[in-house]
Amino acid sequence: MINPFFKNNGPLKISELLKLLNISQKEEINNEEILDIKELFYSNKNEITFFHSKKYKDLAKITKASFCITTENLKNNLPKSCKSIVVDNVLVATSKITEKFYPSSINDNFDNTATDIKETKFKDKVKFGNNVLIGDNVSIGTNCLIGHNSIIEKNVSIGNNCSIGSNVIIRNTLIKNNVNILDSCIIGKCGFGFFPINNNNLRYPHIGAVMIEDNCEIGCSTTIDRGSMSNTVIGKNTFLDNQIHIAHNVKIGENSIIAGQVGIAGSSIIGNNVRIGGHAGISGHLKIGNNVDIAGGSGVIRDIPDNSRIMGYPAKNIRDFLKESR
Amino acid sequence: MINPFFKNNGPLKISELLKLLNISQKEEINNEEILDIKELFYSNKNEITFFHSKKYKDLAKITKASFCITTENLKNNLPKSCKSIVVDNVLVATSKITEKFYPSSINDNFDNTATDIKETKFKDKVKFGNNVLIGDNVSIGTNCLIGHNSIIEKNVSIGNNCSIGSNVIIRNTLIKNNVNILDSCIIGKCGFGFFPINNNNLRYPHIGAVMIEDNCEIGCSTTIDRGSMSNTVIGKNTFLDNQIHIAHNVKIGENSIIAGQVGIAGSSIIGNNVRIGGHAGISGHLKIGNNVDIAGGSGVIRDIPDNSRIMGYPAKNIRDFLKESR
Amino acid sequence: MINPFFKNNGPLKISELLKLLNISQKEEINNEEILDIKELFYSNKNEITFFHSKKYKDLAKITKASFCITTENLKNNLPKSCKSIVVDNVLVATSKITEKFYPSSINDNFDNTATDIKETKFKDKVKFGNNVLIGDNVSIGTNCLIGHNSIIEKNVSIGNNCSIGSNVIIRNTLIKNNVNILDSCIIGKCGFGFFPINNNNLRYPHIGAVMIEDNCEIGCSTTIDRGSMSNTVIGKNTFLDNQIHIAHNVKIGENSIIAGQVGIAGSSIIGNNVRIGGHAGISGHLKIGNNVDIAGGSGVIRDIPDNSRIMGYPAKNIRDFLKESR
Repeated sequence: MINPFFKNNGPLKISELLKLLNISQKEEINNEEILDIKELFYSNKNEITFFHSKKYKDLAKITKASFCITTENLKNNLPKSCKSIVVDNVLVATSKITEKFYPSSINDNFDNTATDIKETKFKDKVKFGNNVLIGDNVSIGTNCLIGHNSIIEKNVSIGNNCSIGSNVIIRNTLIKNNVNILDSCIIGKCGFGFFPINNNNLRYPHIGAVMIEDNCEIGCSTTIDRGSMSNTVIGKNTFLDNQIHIAHNVKIGENSIIAGQVGIAGSSIIGNNVRIGGHAGISGHLKIGNNVDIAGGSGVIRDIPDNSRIMGYPAKNIRDFLKESR
Repeated sequence: MINPFFKNNGPLKISELLKLLNISQKEEINNEEILDIKELFYSNKNEITFFHSKKYKDLAKITKASFCITTENLKNNLPKSCKSIVVDNVLVATSKITEKFYPSSINDNFDNTATDIKETKFKDKVKFGNNVLIGDNVSIGTNCLIGHNSIIEKNVSIGNNCSIGSNVIIRNTLIKNNVNILDSCIIGKCGFGFFPINNNNLRYPHIGAVMIEDNCEIGCSTTIDRGSMSNTVIGKNTFLDNQIHIAHNVKIGENSIIAGQVGIAGSSIIGNNVRIGGHAGISGHLKIGNNVDIAGGSGVIRDIPDNSRIMGYPAKNIRDFLKESR
Repeated sequence: MINPFFKNNGPLKISELLKLLNISQKEEINNEEILDIKELFYSNKNEITFFHSKKYKDLAKITKASFCITTENLKNNLPKSCKSIVVDNVLVATSKITEKFYPSSINDNFDNTATDIKETKFKDKVKFGNNVLIGDNVSIGTNCLIGHNSIIEKNVSIGNNCSIGSNVIIRNTLIKNNVNILDSCIIGKCGFGFFPINNNNLRYPHIGAVMIEDNCEIGCSTTIDRGSMSNTVIGKNTFLDNQIHIAHNVKIGENSIIAGQVGIAGSSIIGNNVRIGGHAGISGHLKIGNNVDIAGGSGVIRDIPDNSRIMGYPAKNIRDFLKESR
């Protein structure tokens, strides 16, 4: 997990974290300092992780984290080197701890650090339109264009030879080289992630970024949300059409082509050389293989193996679908 | 029906209204003054209403209106206190009368009353970005943010602790407290309502507003149209994701969660604690109960009772759908 | 084919064009001058055309073009007056030649010719909002409005009595009279057309325009792409709702009504008096007849004859669909 943007407020004392969760400190826990919070696989000694579903049992067994937020039922899967912190709702507890480490990640208000590009170091380097704003912690490569009224909010890195259209808003995003972002895109905002609580839902922090690899094109009015714990990724030479929505943590491979108004729900992983027809929808937490063709209008609700051609809702083998729907 | 925004041009003489409809005045009608036009249930003495479908027979019987635009077939359902005005096309006639009472409701051009927030009374009260415009008849509570390039057009009331993103356009909207409106939303525009007439469709007036209750979140690039005669309502603590379209007169209950790219057609009513998956569509004039789960990609074309879990197009019980679609 | 906008770089020597395609010049070809590239049916003497599919055999037989890019298999359909230029991939070769004639058509970066309307000849003629920009080669009729932050980029003609909303971006578009373009529309951008090539897709030029006829309304946040070789057309008195996507080369007839979030893929032709319900999708290269009703949520994947009422995915006769889906 790469987390280039949000300032880590750590190290934090484990006592402080337990207090936050209303857990009385067990005697055997020393008041250690915790450096960071990460996913099971990526965490290290002196870090805290979380484990909320049997599905991740094998990753839990080999975690290097010193502490793990988990449940009574799951805690015995953890290695001895990892002390369990048992809670009722793992994700809510994780959210609270994440916010403690990264307090700035929960605030997704407009970027009031953004100032007119004419008053920044980019004024002679970038070709820009009218009323362009640039936030803190922005870098822009050579030979780049930024259109009228666009706002490059804080925490954005743009490579070389990139063309940003007009009315675009970007934050918390790494853009490589030769990328086109067309008009009115919104990239890098907080995903649609929160814990439903009557009368006052609890937003959880999104400490991931959006990463857009070389030679990509992102169509007009497309929205790409940043990841929660990992990044949202658009692979090399992948082209997105207009009015697409890519939710948090989605990872799309290389050389893929996605037509207008497609929606991909949170945490789904799409392979290389995938083609998705217009208006198709893909549910969350799915794995779509390489070289997959998904017909326009399809609704995909299951994992799809490599080299499949699918259609329908729920999407199935295209020949079967067409035969059945005669 | 609340109508806080559009100036009522009444009282208007009944003779003037009949002339507008090309109806020669019947002898028994005195030239009374009419104060307003309202729906059957909400109208009172000295007001005019309309009745265009048998479906509303029971409401017609108890209307308190003094006059009612209706058809030859329906007119006998009205009480004696309510004089019928018989026309061929009730909705077209109603549209003409509504426009006469509320001439400003038909014009949805850009708001040329909007001026730079720096020249308004809000300049020290609100935290605002670059190029923010504020129209006439706007109120804003304490501790609010308005992002870059956003336009708060005329007839908007914003409560306390609200965060409005960048590139947002709002008009004719009541926003309560602790509401987040994310980037590029368009809220309060005239719905997609008109009478199809070859070569020159006739738009009808939209005199309703949008009402957004406490603790709501409205995702990026979402559009919410204002109501025609009643309001479009987003209930307390309901969260909408990106690229959603909510048509005129829709009413959504409390604590509901609506994922990306969902569309809800005109006049449908959605209950409390409803969850709608991404890319689902809901037809117009439907009633979706409380505690309903609608799977992503579904197309709902019928009323749905409380506590249902549905999926498919047309949406049906989720277990039946999944069994049949194996 | 009308091509009012892009500067034709011709005449070009045939030798130059052949060199571009890495074809060694045949002896029998004189070094003629070629004036333009057009579709089979529209091309004339001293022009070049292309022929890539048997489907167009009958048009090929009567083409008046002097040269035609085609394949070994197809070339014998051409008349004697038309010399074949045999290539492996007709569309890639056509793309290269088109770009040579119209080099400016491939660049869809933000329009840096756009300047503040206050500094243009329109400042006293048009009623405009704050921060409005106007590009080169723009004409605007009488009694027009342009809202805040809108950008009328180069190559736009607007008729009389038109109302353009706020945050709108338009280029390469002909708008007739009495047209309403609502907020945040993006009209006239390059379509989603390119040749997929691993690691570096090849965009093809779009030398068509968007044409919007009299009395149309285009809803908020709708995107309409310009055509590649022909125009994208919205017929007289056709109304589009919010968040619609109309791809390149689509032609919609008169008096049609298209509800929110509909998507129409490239090159499909829609008749007159067609009604399309919300969230429906129409595949590319289809022909939808006159007086067709397409239910909301439908996915249309086949041509549809006049006077049909269809529903479903794939869309079929509405009665059959509803019967089967009970």
